[in-house]
Amino acid sequence: MNGQRPERRRGRRKSQEDRGTSKREVNYRQLKNPFATMDVFAVDQIAHMHESALRLLEEMGIRVLLPEARDIFAKAGARVSDDDMVYIGRDIIESAIATAPKSIECRAGARNRDFVLELGSLVFQPGAGAPNATDLVKGRRPATGQDYIDFLKMTHHFDVFQMVSPQVEPQDIPPHERHYFTTKAQVELTDKFPFFFSRGTPQVMECFEMLCMSRGLSDETFRAAPHSYTIINTNSPRTLDIPMAQGLIDFARMRQMSIVTPFTLMGAMAPITVAGAITLSHAEAMAAIALTQLVSPGALICYGTFTSNVDMKSGAPAFGTPSHFQASLAAGQLARFLGLPWRSAAGSASNSNDIQAANENQFGLWGCLLAGASVVIHSAGWLEGGLTVSFEKMICDAEVLNMVAELCAGAQAGADEIGYDTALTQVAPSGHFFDAPQTMERYQTAFYEPFLHDYANFGTWTERGAQDANQRATALWQDIVANSPAPEPKASGLNDLHRFIERRISEGGAPPES
Amino acid sequence: MNGQRPERRRGRRKSQEDRGTSKREVNYRQLKNPFATMDVFAVDQIAHMHESALRLLEEMGIRVLLPEARDIFAKAGARVSDDDMVYIGRDIIESAIATAPKSIECRAGARNRDFVLELGSLVFQPGAGAPNATDLVKGRRPATGQDYIDFLKMTHHFDVFQMVSPQVEPQDIPPHERHYFTTKAQVELTDKFPFFFSRGTPQVMECFEMLCMSRGLSDETFRAAPHSYTIINTNSPRTLDIPMAQGLIDFARMRQMSIVTPFTLMGAMAPITVAGAITLSHAEAMAAIALTQLVSPGALICYGTFTSNVDMKSGAPAFGTPSHFQASLAAGQLARFLGLPWRSAAGSASNSNDIQAANENQFGLWGCLLAGASVVIHSAGWLEGGLTVSFEKMICDAEVLNMVAELCAGAQAGADEIGYDTALTQVAPSGHFFDAPQTMERYQTAFYEPFLHDYANFGTWTERGAQDANQRATALWQDIVANSPAPEPKASGLNDLHRFIERRISEGGAPPES
Repeated sequence: MNGQRPERRRGRRKSQEDRGTSKREVNYRQLKNPFATMDVFAVDQIAHMHESALRLLEEMGIRVLLPEARDIFAKAGARVSDDDMVYIGRDIIESAIATAPKSIECRAGARNRDFVLELGSLVFQPGAGAPNATDLVKGRRPATGQDYIDFLKMTHHFDVFQMVSPQVEPQDIPPHERHYFTTKAQVELTDKFPFFFSRGTPQVMECFEMLCMSRGLSDETFRAAPHSYTIINTNSPRTLDIPMAQGLIDFARMRQMSIVTPFTLMGAMAPITVAGAITLSHAEAMAAIALTQLVSPGALICYGTFTSNVDMKSGAPAFGTPSHFQASLAAGQLARFLGLPWRSAAGSASNSNDIQAANENQFGLWGCLLAGASVVIHSAGWLEGGLTVSFEKMICDAEVLNMVAELCAGAQAGADEIGYDTALTQVAPSGHFFDAPQTMERYQTAFYEPFLHDYANFGTWTERGAQDANQRATALWQDIVANSPAPEPKASGLNDLHRFIERRISEGGAPPES
Repeated sequence: MNGQRPERRRGRRKSQEDRGTSKREVNYRQLKNPFATMDVFAVDQIAHMHESALRLLEEMGIRVLLPEARDIFAKAGARVSDDDMVYIGRDIIESAIATAPKSIECRAGARNRDFVLELGSLVFQPGAGAPNATDLVKGRRPATGQDYIDFLKMTHHFDVFQMVSPQVEPQDIPPHERHYFTTKAQVELTDKFPFFFSRGTPQVMECFEMLCMSRGLSDETFRAAPHSYTIINTNSPRTLDIPMAQGLIDFARMRQMSIVTPFTLMGAMAPITVAGAITLSHAEAMAAIALTQLVSPGALICYGTFTSNVDMKSGAPAFGTPSHFQASLAAGQLARFLGLPWRSAAGSASNSNDIQAANENQFGLWGCLLAGASVVIHSAGWLEGGLTVSFEKMICDAEVLNMVAELCAGAQAGADEIGYDTALTQVAPSGHFFDAPQTMERYQTAFYEPFLHDYANFGTWTERGAQDANQRATALWQDIVANSPAPEPKASGLNDLHRFIERRISEGGAPPES
């Protein structure tokens, strides 16, 4: 089950009965990128960018706000100045790149949800980290715990989302209890690979503990493979702040995965050129990777970049632009230069789930796909440059991602598919192939069946209420939220989890650190 | 001028004044495809498809309804049976492929509108051939002459449309006068490469005559290079009807260009598999190409395919699907196998200009781009699988095409772009690059500026009326239709044209033939 068709509209079901139900099954859970990677820069230019990044770290350094992190760098031979600047020699970076794993086996809550992150793999995440949620029923509002849960159900529903993302911030949950809420939701409502924020060691360690007790993982099993991940954003340019540095250290120590992503906008916190911005991003990512490898050689780290541009007239962020696309291509070239799995991002600057939002998101997505990104974050639902996640947009973008997943499955052109005797010679000139032998064999599984896109003709569509895709998406997400099944619960682990959370909240919880 | 910003909304202009007007200029008129071509089938499978197509033409034949065309095939040695079937030997096909040109220099009304069609070039056309037009003001209706004119102004406005397409059928113009109307509009309102329908020799020859007199072309000049083109659809499976065969002959004789496009839907008028459908389409295209080369070796012919799938539950056509994408890839492989320039198509099945329409169109577009299509037809505005062209969708899709054109321009990563001394070392940790020397040098030209996409924040966007992209598109196309300049007229030629049309209409016009 791809889980892509939660509900069928009544009008449609009737005409479907003629030919029965499709039995099409395509594995969306472990995808390989079928697209040739595209280069935007020449090989020597990429080498020059890498050299420039190494030189920047050596000569100009990076500001590291966490004393423990500065000590780790200093112990490895980096020069540390009084103003918290760390000057990292290329030997440290080169050793780190050498020990960083080229392939990471991510362990989810069920074996058929596991996946591998490496160059060539293709993993999607829904839009992440937004303070607001929006839908056509309730409009735009600060996101709540209920929104978090509802988005999580949608993430679980679509196989094409292989990882859970921190979709929206549940703002009605107190910050010192929020990690209990989000961890409980992740283990109860999905068996996909979970996400934990790096908001200080106390919260992170509690998240690990809760995951282990609810999924029945021994400490040894937990540390033997990544069972969770975090996302680390540098404060570009050239600053690594306290919780981010602490997260890199904590996740490395426990052998869980960090995705390191400088998030920069060309012309604002990064140079105005793709080459300059990606050189800066590359330097920052390598500094963060170095920290993890100094903590624990072989620590699980995913290289990352999320670089788009601002509108130079207004300073406003833009996404899904040609420069965003080229930045993804350049980052992909540098990731391949290092040999590491890497994440990129789609997304949209639009203020509503409209055609701009669709076109920006898909345009940025193709940048990621042709850049050979191992993980595409914000691949669905992300509006306003990340200030809002939209329920309807999650649905609309998931349809596109499903179609991309279908392309990963490829196609065949053997004698059976060409069908010289079963199709081509079976139909007279100007005839039709509806009942050719080849058609009869394959009609139930031949084509991807959309859950949102509507092929009714104009008359039928008008009779049914002339709803556009945005309007139709509302009923689809409402049905998923109400009816889509959660994974089988592991009762004993969950009881332990509930007791743990109750106790910790009564003890005052764990405030985030910054 | 790319012509992509006909109007600025008042609210925006204010904030733009701070930093002046962009001087960005990118040539959208002659594009080279920057994307690596993608293969869906192995090389031996493509060879097997080609062999199967040759065998189909030899053993099963193609029905040719025009006696003159059958005679041409017979004279070349093809067997013709009493039921109008023509059995074409592979020697005829192979000779035709050998003489068909690999590169075609298309001559527009002005030299800076000329372009070359070959493998690797990239030309866009707006959606074509629809009986209906739609917009948010007047709704969906049978298209009129005014709609034809308004769409033509939009085609002229955007540099990214290098060819004119037969956008909508002006149904209020009598069929025997319609070609006067559309030719007059094309020569008066644009200097781009014009399109003529193949609706019988009388209309076609009059179109050629009108074009020559209005653009001041001698017969010799006209025949020396293609100054116009037609699109030839076979009646799949395996029928070439009278006006289409006549068009191939007429355009070949006058050395004008035919784009041969079997338009098929997998599971309906073509086999249910990509391999089978494209084998059929390939056979039909080669038969049509053979006819042109028998008429005039070296006749200007563009290979083509437009193959998508039906919904097997309802039989409804679908576009922008994974199968459509793969069909484009397969057709591109066969075009490269032959070495010929070729056309493919985007498009949408949606009933309104909505998110489905955007996502289908862009998904299909990426199929064409990765398939290495030389011409992408229906790249903007096409709804309902071709029954309607939408004014707002033309605007929305043109934004995406402009962004693709920007990618064609590539990017640089020399020392100036990396900007070690002018940007990377000029900004302190956590600072910003707004006034770095590199930024100041480049801010006016760094980024593509959208004409539709809006980067305002949610508050500003809401204050301005919370218009989505579809609603904003209305003002944009209205402005183009009202204000976008037409090319300089050539008065003498146009006077001749007007007199010719007046006379021919008074003589009864020229009815289409079928």
